[in-house]
Amino acid sequence: MNLEKVLQKAIRIVKPSRADERKLRKIVEKALELTKEEASKVDGIVDVTLEGSAAKNTWIKGREEADIFVHFDPRIEREELEETVVRIGSEVVRRLGGKPMLMYADHPYVEGVIDGITIDIVACYRVEPPNWTSATDRTPYHTKYVLENLRPGQENEVRLLKGFMLGCGVYGAEIKVKGFSGYLTELLTITYGTFLRVLENASKWKPPIVLDPKGYYESKEEILELFKDSPLIVIDPVDKSRNVAAAVSKTKLFEFVLAAKLFLKKPSIKFFIQKAEKAKISDIRKLAKNRALLYTYFKLREEKPRDVIWGELKRSEEGIRRALERAGFQVYRSGSWTDEKKTCLMIFELDRLKLPKYALHRGPPIHLRNAEEFVEKWSKEAVGPWVDGDRLYVLRKREETDASKVLRAEIEKGNVAISKGLLNYIRRARISGALDSLLKLGKRNPDLLRFIWSFLKARPIFL
Amino acid sequence: MNLEKVLQKAIRIVKPSRADERKLRKIVEKALELTKEEASKVDGIVDVTLEGSAAKNTWIKGREEADIFVHFDPRIEREELEETVVRIGSEVVRRLGGKPMLMYADHPYVEGVIDGITIDIVACYRVEPPNWTSATDRTPYHTKYVLENLRPGQENEVRLLKGFMLGCGVYGAEIKVKGFSGYLTELLTITYGTFLRVLENASKWKPPIVLDPKGYYESKEEILELFKDSPLIVIDPVDKSRNVAAAVSKTKLFEFVLAAKLFLKKPSIKFFIQKAEKAKISDIRKLAKNRALLYTYFKLREEKPRDVIWGELKRSEEGIRRALERAGFQVYRSGSWTDEKKTCLMIFELDRLKLPKYALHRGPPIHLRNAEEFVEKWSKEAVGPWVDGDRLYVLRKREETDASKVLRAEIEKGNVAISKGLLNYIRRARISGALDSLLKLGKRNPDLLRFIWSFLKARPIFL
Repeated sequence: MNLEKVLQKAIRIVKPSRADERKLRKIVEKALELTKEEASKVDGIVDVTLEGSAAKNTWIKGREEADIFVHFDPRIEREELEETVVRIGSEVVRRLGGKPMLMYADHPYVEGVIDGITIDIVACYRVEPPNWTSATDRTPYHTKYVLENLRPGQENEVRLLKGFMLGCGVYGAEIKVKGFSGYLTELLTITYGTFLRVLENASKWKPPIVLDPKGYYESKEEILELFKDSPLIVIDPVDKSRNVAAAVSKTKLFEFVLAAKLFLKKPSIKFFIQKAEKAKISDIRKLAKNRALLYTYFKLREEKPRDVIWGELKRSEEGIRRALERAGFQVYRSGSWTDEKKTCLMIFELDRLKLPKYALHRGPPIHLRNAEEFVEKWSKEAVGPWVDGDRLYVLRKREETDASKVLRAEIEKGNVAISKGLLNYIRRARISGALDSLLKLGKRNPDLLRFIWSFLKARPIFL
Repeated sequence: MNLEKVLQKAIRIVKPSRADERKLRKIVEKALELTKEEASKVDGIVDVTLEGSAAKNTWIKGREEADIFVHFDPRIEREELEETVVRIGSEVVRRLGGKPMLMYADHPYVEGVIDGITIDIVACYRVEPPNWTSATDRTPYHTKYVLENLRPGQENEVRLLKGFMLGCGVYGAEIKVKGFSGYLTELLTITYGTFLRVLENASKWKPPIVLDPKGYYESKEEILELFKDSPLIVIDPVDKSRNVAAAVSKTKLFEFVLAAKLFLKKPSIKFFIQKAEKAKISDIRKLAKNRALLYTYFKLREEKPRDVIWGELKRSEEGIRRALERAGFQVYRSGSWTDEKKTCLMIFELDRLKLPKYALHRGPPIHLRNAEEFVEKWSKEAVGPWVDGDRLYVLRKREETDASKVLRAEIEKGNVAISKGLLNYIRRARISGALDSLLKLGKRNPDLLRFIWSFLKARPIFL
């Protein structure tokens, strides 16, 4: 299929119909009206506005959402602001006929799904840049900047970019994804002009990539000095001290670059489609053959906010990964999964599930005083010591060699950097290298099974 | 046992008796006389002298040897010198009642064992320093320097040092050992005064160690600049451009340092005794339990000079070691053995004898052009590719996983840096990880069995 045809098809996927638009407008207007009504009963609220993709007309089909912002006077205490917005938000969602859910980002907000449309009611302080008091204060300025700088017609370019990123699994700034935020797609479109130009430029990106839409800085070097270690730096037009792409992980950045390269080489509608194939047990068995998988599975006693649980999982996954490597395993890959309620799984693909009985243990250089102690200590309980170069070595006998037992022992000894909020769960978690027991868990939960399957396939979804 | 007592005992081990000395003198005189007689028949020979430990009176009991040097006029061609010394040497050994053996160091020489005493007949050019024409030309000057600088009584200090090094397995500059030469022990004794002072100083050595007995250089830095990468540098008093310790490997150097430390801490006669315990099959089996040994065994079609075969073995051992590591094994240790006739063995202790079926294979950074080729190439035949950071990775399926098969395949592909002189032997060699077949070889050869045993013990002999 040629590029033009693909883009025609893609626009049909991402662009809302007139009917979709009318529906969204109607609900948004109602929500705004109700929020203003509730807000008027409270002192200290100075405005109620629509923000986000609905305000900018950049929302995509199937991801309808509206962010209603309640602006507070900066003299209002943080605690009061939080209580107030939760109270107002809950009331609004209830009056719209929805079920209010308390969510947490930088501060609490209220979410409700009305007729398939997600309504978020969020608080911010009405401040002038750069006197930010809370993380959401910039949002109204983001909306303003995009509305002023996105030319008519470019909304659909943003939509194509969002749809492409969604189909490639790199869309969303939340910890689960660590990908591109909506605002970032808008800035990229403003910078490069069209969806295709964004891809063309991205396909040539070489880290570190630096964009400064408003030209706040004199040179790239100045920016790199300020935002060290970021592979992608996009200076926020409304706040020169902020990198809009700070949440984008290196991996997601380069998945996007790779997707851009492959799409330009061979355009296809598949880049816009989120596959939801059904995972088959027999396929999983075939994929898992001769591979070494270790997993840990546990259930939380109580639910946690989505970003909290994902953050804890990712950090713990990294800690376990490092512990396994220190113990002598090679960790090829790892991944985490949660139903975002209580059930959690971390999975590690290792070189093997059993360590050799003997491990090389490097002693001190012989010119150091403790060389003699090393000889004395290890002469009895190890093979060696011998001299190689200027150092002593022994072969240390391992007590445990099974991956699951090694990991459990390390956790017990407190040698694994596990997120505090998960420590007690993981200490009692199932830790196993048995594929059958993993599949048994998967049989009870299709989403988990799909995760296992895609983990074993080990490819970005666009491949 | 206290230090004094140990030294008293040690001196009895290393110092030749009056009878030993008389015997040596008698044979040496006869050998010198015969060599002079033979030399007088040839033009171009200007002198015949006694060199080495017999000339310096620093030889030790059980290692009786005499180096007879035939000095040639520098105008004599190298080829003629070699032919002449071989002819004269052979004749002398025959007339002494021995069997002449042709040996090779830098140039050929003749060796004979007469009544348990080794006689070497060696050629050199009579030149003035620093106009060296061949490697042996310095030797007469070494003898002269030691005789002029070793004070009466210090001969026995040298003998203690040689005996200690012999007992600790670090004596001998030949490739098999890569340890300390006799001349080096003499220079160390001249520098530090006594055997004990040598040990006291050596126990505090920290690399790089620099000694310049004649003070040729202004500073240590100047010497380090000239002799880079040498852990021990001893400037030759007769040739400022030569490091007397060039042949000492880092490992042997630090085995000596360790032995010195341990001896001073707890003096014992065992440091002077070369153990020759008998290796027991049952002990070897016990030691080898749960360990992964790979060996290669082969026989040469014809004998080679000792230093040649050891050099080839060591280089090939290193090449195989690196090949095994590239293939995914961890090589804990390795060693070579030969009967110095035809039979050779190389042995490698690995982490395990079997590799995992899948290996991590790192692809290019995604910003490079070949990233797409990598995706195309590996998508079919590997697990993945996936993105981690800015790179692509796959899990590559290994064709061979057994250590012996992996090594044989790598050798066949020409991927192993094996010494040219051994390549055809090793290509047809037995390569195996089976302990039983190794022990069968050992049963036929007690020296080989002892080597296997000491390899498995993995300790310097003084421990």
